[in-house]
Amino acid sequence: MLELLYEGKAKKVYQTDKEDELILSYKDDATAFNGKKKAQFTGKGRFNNLITAHVFRYLTTEAIPHHFIETLNDTDQRVYKTSIIPIEVVVRNRSSYSLNNRLGIKEDAVFEPALVEWFYKNDALNDPLINDQHVFLLTDVSKEELNQIYELTLKINNALKRFFHQINLDLIDFKIEFGRNSAGEIILSDEISPDTCRLEDSYTKQHLDKDVFRQGTGNLLDVYQIILSRLEELS
Amino acid sequence: MLELLYEGKAKKVYQTDKEDELILSYKDDATAFNGKKKAQFTGKGRFNNLITAHVFRYLTTEAIPHHFIETLNDTDQRVYKTSIIPIEVVVRNRSSYSLNNRLGIKEDAVFEPALVEWFYKNDALNDPLINDQHVFLLTDVSKEELNQIYELTLKINNALKRFFHQINLDLIDFKIEFGRNSAGEIILSDEISPDTCRLEDSYTKQHLDKDVFRQGTGNLLDVYQIILSRLEELS
Ligand SMILES: Nc1ncnc2c1ncn2[C@@H]1O[C@H](COP(=O)(O)OP(=O)(O)O)[C@@H](O)[C@H]1O
Ligand SMILES: Nc1ncnc2c1ncn2[C@@H]1O[C@H](COP(=O)(O)OP(=O)(O)O)[C@@H](O)[C@H]1O
Ligand SMILES: [Mg+2]
Ligand SMILES: [Mg+2]
Repeated sequence: MLELLYEGKAKKVYQTDKEDELILSYKDDATAFNGKKKAQFTGKGRFNNLITAHVFRYLTTEAIPHHFIETLNDTDQRVYKTSIIPIEVVVRNRSSYSLNNRLGIKEDAVFEPALVEWFYKNDALNDPLINDQHVFLLTDVSKEELNQIYELTLKINNALKRFFHQINLDLIDFKIEFGRNSAGEIILSDEISPDTCRLEDSYTKQHLDKDVFRQGTGNLLDVYQIILSRLEELS
Repeated sequence: MLELLYEGKAKKVYQTDKEDELILSYKDDATAFNGKKKAQFTGKGRFNNLITAHVFRYLTTEAIPHHFIETLNDTDQRVYKTSIIPIEVVVRNRSSYSLNNRLGIKEDAVFEPALVEWFYKNDALNDPLINDQHVFLLTDVSKEELNQIYELTLKINNALKRFFHQINLDLIDFKIEFGRNSAGEIILSDEISPDTCRLEDSYTKQHLDKDVFRQGTGNLLDVYQIILSRLEELS
């Protein structure tokens, strides 16, 4: 029996017998608005596990340092253990209703360069937006490291745009997390899936991401299936 | 009759017959929590008008560029007209309950260097916190100008700490606004008063600012009178 280290909203985290490796086990739960909206979708865990694996394998070819090792089965993947930096890094290539609500920036606004935002990863505080100075107060990230995170984030954005472009999806925005591995290096961690990206079909303009659940505008499983199918056709 | 250009929560703004000069007329209204809490205090306008005048006259001696020209009477002051940059610049030398609520930073935390935050001056959006990139999207402020605003802000903080120290007050935090004058220069505008500063008596640790109204912990007029009296004794 593996030791359960943490159960989050979307995944369970297990310690393996190697000190610096974990298993991320993707759950079928969907949550939105910091857990205020909840539902179960049988098969969602599998989609996010497999889609995330496709993404990270691509990021290897783009020389992005990351935690992913391999998928073990439909819902589980092996990753390098990191100590997670408690910042949710949000990258926006285009505005969306959430930015419109917060700052009044119109939904069709395009950001070039991409707009990068830090949020403090803290459910009790509702993941508040923070600035660079808050990062230094709230985490052990140095000025040089924050700059490194910023540069890496822009590289990841470019890589992800290319990745999703292959399956005719436009990347509107996404959320990533970084952690420090056992060598102290900052590497991309967590997941990259339709739970954490806003994706739009380049031709039909259909939204293919968790917004169908957040906004109640479509069937989550159908949409995640479309993405996985396109990725499997590709490879 | 002067033309009323704008009526805000705390002041009325009149155009004078000189194109680049305004009259700020301080009202007796107190508001908190973006106008959700309201009251009238006869004499408050006078206190803020006169206290602000003392502050800006001191800032002249510290070579801070600002809009203040002179007081005209108990409630009115003449200032250079600026086009206000829609950013509320907040400077924190120490934490407070609001930062504690937002980020969980303990109330007695001391910030050295001071923590500087930008908020988008927009009542309809509830003056949201923004980062540098949001500033560039939402205003016409350039990167160089934002840096200039930041440096000027630190200078103003140091000057204000010295100013209030003369009357045995510690400056916990404050909010300022900048505008562009007719020559295009960025200068300190608006007011600096117990409405916009958190001030603590260095010895008794009593709060001498609008928090007594916000929190319902004291009499606003008594507290503002104490500050004005100390300033008048000084000069
Ligand atoms: N490589 C890693 N090492 C350690 N923790 C990780 C790694 N990758 C992701 N995590 C963390 O594991 C948890 C995954 O579970 P999730 O359901 O996403 O949690 P949450 O509800 O906190 O978002 C997250 O807290 C995430 O920060
Ligand atoms: N020198 C100036 N030139 C033009 N506008 C100014 C100047 N100084 C302050 N203001 C603006 O005048 C208004 C003052 O009224 P106030 O009651 O403080 O308004 P608010 O409710 O917007 O805070 C503010 O909107 C402020 O930005
Ligand atoms: Mg998560
Ligand atoms: Mg004001």
